[in-house]
Amino acid sequence: MSGNSIGKLFTVTTAGESHGAGLVAIVDGCPPNIPLTEADLQVDLDRRKPGTSRHTTQRREDDVVEIISGVFEGKTTGTAIALLIRNTDQRSKDYGNIAEQFRPGHADYTYYHKYGIRDYRGGGRSSARETAVRVAAGAIAKKVLAAQFGVKIYGYLSQLGPNRPSSFDATVIENNPFFWPCEADIPALENYMDNLRKSGNSVGAAVTVIAEGVPVGLGEPVFDRLDAELAHSLMSINAVKGVEIGDGFDCIEALGTEFRDEMTSTGGFLSNHAGGILGGISSGQPIVARIALKPTSSLRLEGRSINQHGEDVTVVTKGRHDPCVGIRATPIAEAMMAMTLLDAALRHRGQNQKI
Amino acid sequence: MSGNSIGKLFTVTTAGESHGAGLVAIVDGCPPNIPLTEADLQVDLDRRKPGTSRHTTQRREDDVVEIISGVFEGKTTGTAIALLIRNTDQRSKDYGNIAEQFRPGHADYTYYHKYGIRDYRGGGRSSARETAVRVAAGAIAKKVLAAQFGVKIYGYLSQLGPNRPSSFDATVIENNPFFWPCEADIPALENYMDNLRKSGNSVGAAVTVIAEGVPVGLGEPVFDRLDAELAHSLMSINAVKGVEIGDGFDCIEALGTEFRDEMTSTGGFLSNHAGGILGGISSGQPIVARIALKPTSSLRLEGRSINQHGEDVTVVTKGRHDPCVGIRATPIAEAMMAMTLLDAALRHRGQNQKI
Amino acid sequence: MSGNSIGKLFTVTTAGESHGAGLVAIVDGCPPNIPLTEADLQVDLDRRKPGTSRHTTQRREDDVVEIISGVFEGKTTGTAIALLIRNTDQRSKDYGNIAEQFRPGHADYTYYHKYGIRDYRGGGRSSARETAVRVAAGAIAKKVLAAQFGVKIYGYLSQLGPNRPSSFDATVIENNPFFWPCEADIPALENYMDNLRKSGNSVGAAVTVIAEGVPVGLGEPVFDRLDAELAHSLMSINAVKGVEIGDGFDCIEALGTEFRDEMTSTGGFLSNHAGGILGGISSGQPIVARIALKPTSSLRLEGRSINQHGEDVTVVTKGRHDPCVGIRATPIAEAMMAMTLLDAALRHRGQNQKI
Amino acid sequence: MSGNSIGKLFTVTTAGESHGAGLVAIVDGCPPNIPLTEADLQVDLDRRKPGTSRHTTQRREDDVVEIISGVFEGKTTGTAIALLIRNTDQRSKDYGNIAEQFRPGHADYTYYHKYGIRDYRGGGRSSARETAVRVAAGAIAKKVLAAQFGVKIYGYLSQLGPNRPSSFDATVIENNPFFWPCEADIPALENYMDNLRKSGNSVGAAVTVIAEGVPVGLGEPVFDRLDAELAHSLMSINAVKGVEIGDGFDCIEALGTEFRDEMTSTGGFLSNHAGGILGGISSGQPIVARIALKPTSSLRLEGRSINQHGEDVTVVTKGRHDPCVGIRATPIAEAMMAMTLLDAALRHRGQNQKI
Repeated sequence: MSGNSIGKLFTVTTAGESHGAGLVAIVDGCPPNIPLTEADLQVDLDRRKPGTSRHTTQRREDDVVEIISGVFEGKTTGTAIALLIRNTDQRSKDYGNIAEQFRPGHADYTYYHKYGIRDYRGGGRSSARETAVRVAAGAIAKKVLAAQFGVKIYGYLSQLGPNRPSSFDATVIENNPFFWPCEADIPALENYMDNLRKSGNSVGAAVTVIAEGVPVGLGEPVFDRLDAELAHSLMSINAVKGVEIGDGFDCIEALGTEFRDEMTSTGGFLSNHAGGILGGISSGQPIVARIALKPTSSLRLEGRSINQHGEDVTVVTKGRHDPCVGIRATPIAEAMMAMTLLDAALRHRGQNQKI
Repeated sequence: MSGNSIGKLFTVTTAGESHGAGLVAIVDGCPPNIPLTEADLQVDLDRRKPGTSRHTTQRREDDVVEIISGVFEGKTTGTAIALLIRNTDQRSKDYGNIAEQFRPGHADYTYYHKYGIRDYRGGGRSSARETAVRVAAGAIAKKVLAAQFGVKIYGYLSQLGPNRPSSFDATVIENNPFFWPCEADIPALENYMDNLRKSGNSVGAAVTVIAEGVPVGLGEPVFDRLDAELAHSLMSINAVKGVEIGDGFDCIEALGTEFRDEMTSTGGFLSNHAGGILGGISSGQPIVARIALKPTSSLRLEGRSINQHGEDVTVVTKGRHDPCVGIRATPIAEAMMAMTLLDAALRHRGQNQKI
Repeated sequence: MSGNSIGKLFTVTTAGESHGAGLVAIVDGCPPNIPLTEADLQVDLDRRKPGTSRHTTQRREDDVVEIISGVFEGKTTGTAIALLIRNTDQRSKDYGNIAEQFRPGHADYTYYHKYGIRDYRGGGRSSARETAVRVAAGAIAKKVLAAQFGVKIYGYLSQLGPNRPSSFDATVIENNPFFWPCEADIPALENYMDNLRKSGNSVGAAVTVIAEGVPVGLGEPVFDRLDAELAHSLMSINAVKGVEIGDGFDCIEALGTEFRDEMTSTGGFLSNHAGGILGGISSGQPIVARIALKPTSSLRLEGRSINQHGEDVTVVTKGRHDPCVGIRATPIAEAMMAMTLLDAALRHRGQNQKI
Repeated sequence: MSGNSIGKLFTVTTAGESHGAGLVAIVDGCPPNIPLTEADLQVDLDRRKPGTSRHTTQRREDDVVEIISGVFEGKTTGTAIALLIRNTDQRSKDYGNIAEQFRPGHADYTYYHKYGIRDYRGGGRSSARETAVRVAAGAIAKKVLAAQFGVKIYGYLSQLGPNRPSSFDATVIENNPFFWPCEADIPALENYMDNLRKSGNSVGAAVTVIAEGVPVGLGEPVFDRLDAELAHSLMSINAVKGVEIGDGFDCIEALGTEFRDEMTSTGGFLSNHAGGILGGISSGQPIVARIALKPTSSLRLEGRSINQHGEDVTVVTKGRHDPCVGIRATPIAEAMMAMTLLDAALRHRGQNQKI
């Protein structure tokens, strides 16, 4: 399979550019008889969509999704589900001046050299706009996981530049524009973001995503370990530069006696340093993954670069951009984890369940 | 494809358990006419093999590889290359007492629940012994990358518990049992490891792996981005809990102006925070990845767990184990990066090169 | 990958039902910089579309295709190409009476038992309407094959019920509604079809498809032999019950001395019984495949069947149907052969071409 | 995946050449807890192995298979099963004279031009010797199909040159060296083959393979239809030039009223022209496939060809060859059908079965 597909049994293939006609996904292998409407997908699309607060890009996209196929009388039929989201607010003229420039930190340079041609409008295929249709596809995966496997997935922004949550309250995550798990921190975060935006700069972030209720046994040794598949799917999100499972990089300085999650007959696992995965297979504990997202490179602050002719240029990115792409990344990370877990669940059922 | 294969065009499939008859790999899609002998593979196998210093497991495996097919008169023929490594030093009796126990932090529990059966001897399929044949397959990938694409891959231990290299000298990496890039640190490391071993405990580590000479253009948007594929392959190594590309998690606190790698016509890229990958495609800069390896859970220090009947047990792992699995992980990480880069290179050539 | 995709490097994924909103394809892995417009695709769509003569279904579909992505300023960009064809002439009411019946010879029974639900309107996903978007995707493959590999593909109806061409003239194939290679036969064929249509019955057919200019070397031993891949793709067309390469079933009674295609230094191959494929790899001769298409089961003549409740029913299919589905199958067979050859060409180039 | 693998969930990857060290298969995705020993595989290997009658090649290969991994205490563990068959009777010197010649009708020419190198000994990778390890892998699939799905597969030689069975009795198929279903025909067949062998020529054949007890619902629309997958796997067998499902090519002249398989509430399907597959999905009827195998091109009768330098040569193939490769093909066809059905069954279970 070429690069625009992910998953072996539950397979999502996407297409579409930032400033083209729209975004398409084909979701293949969805179990039948799952109630599904466009409204189900819209919930997560609305959580991700730009322009909902002053802290994200001011591009206005309604991100209305149409289900073209695979659903009949409100239920999935088991056949391929095609999704279409039309682009509505493309301002291609914003990009005329960078048609021949390689914006520093962007994919302009690599796409051009890979293909010898590139759609320069808003980054074309490399734009994070593509993730809208992932979120729609992920919402389908979430529904199936909940209906057939009892799995629930949620995420939150676990770091925004230097800011970390002062406390953790899952119930407040959806109540602020940051998916932040601590209500008391919000005024400081808003202040931080206002200053950042005014400075014209951007900053990185971390998102944590958790799956609860995962049955023991998901993940295929050895190369398609569940953690390897999660690393793949989460690293495929734009701007992600690192993926951790459980304690992640903190395991480097841990001793074996500290890290191994002991068990008792009455208490089950006594800790979850492993993040819910042992030997590449889900253990029944919550699966915990954390991703690092780099600061966007689209800045109105001047940067040095070259153009297609190899000449020095000074690049200023106008357009409309997120000062912290991590802020809208929580629903995307949830979507990727959902696709990966559902694929693993179907594969496990295929090999290991007797009729 | 089921879980024991990796790669789309350059595909490696492995089989074999810690205490079974041996390990097998089928390497499919290798370009033809590449000179290849068993000695080529043995070099990396010897770098990885146990028992070469007192700091690794004392299990003695010669890890002699036989090329069963795919090579004719010293050259690859383009057909499938089968590799066989016989196991020779299995002491299955070491494991009799854990036949029904789930060692804490191990895959015993998850394999048993996934499959309803497990080969408990030395972890069976979940053992890191499986990585021997990955290293052999990776050596083939390295040869092709060097011959056809000018790519050179090397790695080193970049952290051992709390110890970090005091300085960096690539020329000393192969001169010590740790793949450590600073000669002056070796006595302290040996001392640290001696104490750790005596304590019966284990510790985590980090390995950094680098590819130089990578042509611009490798990696398939959007799901099979080169960084996503690397995250997959590196996270598929036993004990790995985190993967970073370039600055990795340090990007969280970075500002956009700091992180974006600027370019000039004379100097090319002025920095490499991105780790050689932009938009999921290689930029021509060195590709830099870092992985975190957890401390092994096989300890002679007692741990609480349960057995297959759900009863509390106290587990002591005898066997022969590495106090720090990261020490032997450098050749494995190189092998995985090599497979992934070669697969990306062949895919790129397939789509984008004219005849 | 789930079942709605075909191809490893040049991958086509389709979605859509007969009476849903429309048909979608995502064409992934297309080489960049190939000139491509919707008009290029429309040519083949118009060759396949229904209602162009009295000998095919009277359903009227314009089959207008929209390229949603992957093309910029008239050229492919190397990224995923999404295609959309809206359905416009669905008369779902034609199907109300068969909502709970299993039409004999149709997929109604098997879809219902596989999924526990089915979109009964016009056969839903099992309808040959799905092939419209295959034809559009195949037209892209044809363009690339011609531009980069010098391959030309064409097909013709080689049998219509008991009728076989009296002579062969490739230049007349496109001049009649049957894709028939003998002009003199047309009046008799029209008469045959008029009688068939009046009788309310249907009949089978055979289509031959040929690729000329195929370079030697395409096809991957051993399972992905070129003939095996062609058998897969051609048998995936609705109603196909048999696939032959070269002499096909005639080889059973042939002697070795008759069948083996001898060569001379001046004349090259002296015959082409093998149909252009030796050992699963293209030989440089024309590739010749022939498929058998069953008579459509949608008849206004009564048939015995059962309904979803297991009760006996008498089924009469109203709707609008082709009395011989083979008549419109030539462009579909060409499309499938084109996809398969291009995929093989890209895979071959990936493994075997040096940069 | 490269070309040496088949199957999505139940995946078989093979390696090995005619005159190399041996043959290897990795069988991935096998359900756990299936009793399995080498003796189970040997049964089918012995049915296929050469030298059991005067009507097949006199090469003597014991074809003893070793299970290297994936089986523990007599049961499959769910992990990858590696199989090894050593070659023992290679007479490479038989091939010295054809090292630079392209035998007419063979893969010599195409392998050489594809890869620029070839293992000329006995056809190397293109030899039908490779099918030994397919038969071993297929025996595993048969066991799982029987144990978990109630499926039974058997085949027979349905045509040998111009000879067709005079009657059909399934119980005699295993009692003669031809897998022939009519005992009375055997003397005439032996006589036919004796004459053919003396003449130095070869002839084609047809094999029919049948699966009984197949549950309704196997096969993935639209490209991975069960018939398309069967066509792929059966056409991947050496020498196969055609594949039919059910009535196959006879459907061309059939009327719709004749071909569609009607049903009644008491009698179920009243006929099986479709060969057990409707819309690409198994219907619950027996699955019937038929393949055409060309006459072997390895003849001691002179043939015209060219050598690697483009010069005319006269080729005489000494070696030891089957005068009718179809005679030993029945177990191979069974093996391929078994792999394909099991893969389809696991995929179906993954998507459609609730836990």
